[in-house]
Amino acid sequence: MRTLEHPEPGVLRLETVLAALADPVRLVIVRQLANGCEDQACIAFELPVTKSTSTHHFRVLREAGVITQHYRGTAILNNLRDKTLNERFPGLLDAILRADA
Amino acid sequence: MRTLEHPEPGVLRLETVLAALADPVRLVIVRQLANGCEDQACIAFELPVTKSTSTHHFRVLREAGVITQHYRGTAILNNLRDKTLNERFPGLLDAILRADA
Repeated sequence: MRTLEHPEPGVLRLETVLAALADPVRLVIVRQLANGCEDQACIAFELPVTKSTSTHHFRVLREAGVITQHYRGTAILNNLRDKTLNERFPGLLDAILRADA
Repeated sequence: MRTLEHPEPGVLRLETVLAALADPVRLVIVRQLANGCEDQACIAFELPVTKSTSTHHFRVLREAGVITQHYRGTAILNNLRDKTLNERFPGLLDAILRADA
């Protein structure tokens, strides 16, 4: 099974996480992951962008350490790394989720 | 006296603020403003960049609504818009200042 790379918690950088979150489409993804259930498939997000742009946004979030992605069959399932983010950057995710959309 | 434009609190956008903060030099500026006194001149910041790059970074922060800038003679003085940021995005600035540099 193909696996995708994820940064370890210790190497997450604040400016990289902020840059990953500094995009309206990626904020939609993060809010949906925060409000929804586990293992949300990429195709379950109704995003106003093409599939390849959507794939790019998910990859940016994963590489910054904001989400995990893993394969189930041909689907890619996503989860918010809220525990890791809350440990590394206390209060940041909550403040962003609390802000006006 | 020449004045510089600042966005009204109501038009500040989360993704624009996050993008402004998603840069190591701009985080240094924000931390120094948060820890220092009022009206800090641009030249008082020891930044590892050229003067024109530094000017760019201050402008990005001002246009995103993170700092105010005003002239005193030929100097430009900077202040953190912490009250505005705390009202619009509660907890965000504190979380960012609390994070590891």
